[in-house]
Amino acid sequence: MAEIRRDPVTGGWVIIATERAARPHDFFVSRGERKTEFCPFCEGNEDRTPAEIAAVRPLDSPPDTPGWKIRVVPNKFPALRLDQRLRVEGQGLYHTVQGFGAHEVIIESPQHLTSPTQMTRQDFQLVIQTYCDRSRALSADERLSYVLVFKNVGESAGASIEHTHSQIIAVPVMPKRVHEEMRGCEESYADGGRCLFCDILEQELREGVRVVVEDEDFAVLSPFAARFPFEMWILPKRHSTHFFELDGDLVGGLAAVLQEALGRMEVCLRDPPYNYAVHTAPVGSSQADYFHWHIELIPRVTRLAGFEWGTGFHINPMAPERATEYLRDVSEARLREKVASVSARRRGHE
Amino acid sequence: MAEIRRDPVTGGWVIIATERAARPHDFFVSRGERKTEFCPFCEGNEDRTPAEIAAVRPLDSPPDTPGWKIRVVPNKFPALRLDQRLRVEGQGLYHTVQGFGAHEVIIESPQHLTSPTQMTRQDFQLVIQTYCDRSRALSADERLSYVLVFKNVGESAGASIEHTHSQIIAVPVMPKRVHEEMRGCEESYADGGRCLFCDILEQELREGVRVVVEDEDFAVLSPFAARFPFEMWILPKRHSTHFFELDGDLVGGLAAVLQEALGRMEVCLRDPPYNYAVHTAPVGSSQADYFHWHIELIPRVTRLAGFEWGTGFHINPMAPERATEYLRDVSEARLREKVASVSARRRGHE
Repeated sequence: MAEIRRDPVTGGWVIIATERAARPHDFFVSRGERKTEFCPFCEGNEDRTPAEIAAVRPLDSPPDTPGWKIRVVPNKFPALRLDQRLRVEGQGLYHTVQGFGAHEVIIESPQHLTSPTQMTRQDFQLVIQTYCDRSRALSADERLSYVLVFKNVGESAGASIEHTHSQIIAVPVMPKRVHEEMRGCEESYADGGRCLFCDILEQELREGVRVVVEDEDFAVLSPFAARFPFEMWILPKRHSTHFFELDGDLVGGLAAVLQEALGRMEVCLRDPPYNYAVHTAPVGSSQADYFHWHIELIPRVTRLAGFEWGTGFHINPMAPERATEYLRDVSEARLREKVASVSARRRGHE
Repeated sequence: MAEIRRDPVTGGWVIIATERAARPHDFFVSRGERKTEFCPFCEGNEDRTPAEIAAVRPLDSPPDTPGWKIRVVPNKFPALRLDQRLRVEGQGLYHTVQGFGAHEVIIESPQHLTSPTQMTRQDFQLVIQTYCDRSRALSADERLSYVLVFKNVGESAGASIEHTHSQIIAVPVMPKRVHEEMRGCEESYADGGRCLFCDILEQELREGVRVVVEDEDFAVLSPFAARFPFEMWILPKRHSTHFFELDGDLVGGLAAVLQEALGRMEVCLRDPPYNYAVHTAPVGSSQADYFHWHIELIPRVTRLAGFEWGTGFHINPMAPERATEYLRDVSEARLREKVASVSARRRGHE
């Protein structure tokens, strides 16, 4: 029979339907990639994007020319812009903030790759480093409240371009889900003087049934109240509030563990569309040490029905303990093939 | 430029991208209806569903035989069942409730219709009455906390069967979104001694720019902080806490106004997939008179990206004021054709 589980962080409830024994192939969904002739993100097409904000490229190479490894450009149709004046307006019951903020695109490779599992470890490490650098740079603007790093892969997951890229949105208000997570962590800290995510990690690593990947510095969990089949959280084991404080060694470690989590997911679900988002503490909340940054990874393999919208109450037909088994059971050989094969092919081209 | 707007009820923020002038045809999405040979919801196939819980049928007609107008049956794969014992368990940080609750399907017509706009006013009134009756019946069980009535139309909106139907899920816990709405209303009531939705109605009817339909008893608004293009809220003008308290005259009135809202949406967006859900006060909350029931209607015409999941922060490319104009501009002739044509055809068959 089903179980109704409570997310200890947000207090949300999820129905975990355990009765029907779902299997990974019940969730195969195509990424729906469009093969287009022209890709504005490929090397050589730098003039087809707005001008670079930042890049990883040789010191002597001019901006917006070939030779780069990573480019950061403003979104072509930004929802928000930093050159707007921050202006808050009220009208009766309503509050409005003018479109102040930032909306950036991180182009992660000069080559037309479509997932980070196709990158070398070293190249993906540069991507993670760029997430940190841009987060730190935007967090210096005190008018901003939150910096969100996220990635969409596959058309049905919201990606309009298949060339591997991530986005950063920085906003002058506090997003609701972050507010909920912060509140849950703050209440828990007030009660017991401990970080809720540290407690979750301790319980999960002791019980082991929802641990997909673990190494010295990171753990990948399928969360107890997973809203989606094969949802995963990637957490640093040592308590850390702000994602952008990730230090040198851990950048490589995160790249490795995230590639492994993505690789296991891609083998298990045959390259599904997916999203991940970095959940970090708000800008300037140096006091918020009750929060523990993490990455939430969601394969987009089910459709949301009216029920979910109506209530914020999800039905997940795949128990996270079973998802963990499937993800762990991916053989080393298939994992190496998935995560390393394109790297090998790429080496051939270079 | 974009605006960031705050939902006065939940406190959530939405980016309303007003810069790109979106038009309805930017949002045309197919309902993705599967023409299958066999429909278990059609008259004559009563043995292909679980046995009736309730029905609208002649007094002398036995259950699970033809002759009905509406049937209510348990979901074939229910996520929750009332014959389970209510059992709450804790394990470390985690809380679980066993799969206690109800999951029912309301089959809204003996004929193979695919949207309520194809029904006569009288028949759709029976559907609304059935929503009320089942809500009231389930709300009598004190072990339940919440009764949710919702409808999915179109495969991409979560409907696996196209024959027009709704669902009811009754749960022993409080859904998060309802909790947020209740809290927003309670805080507002504590501040000003007034219902927040009554205040919203007053401001909206005075300003007029987001009012899609209005009659003596109901208003259909495109909400100020609409999360989705063409999102609509249907509200009773007179304050009312529990949906199931809807009295006789208003049942017909709600059927009429909901059919009109659906008809305008279907003309404007060419029969999109959609969901609606009744937001009502929790079971047994007789004291919660600060809450005002309403229906939220969401055409499913955009894809959610990682950003929305990561933050609960939506980007809506269609300002609700513009959506209101498009929805209001639907001509009476096209509206009559959409909402009445099948009724006429049906009369021919009867």
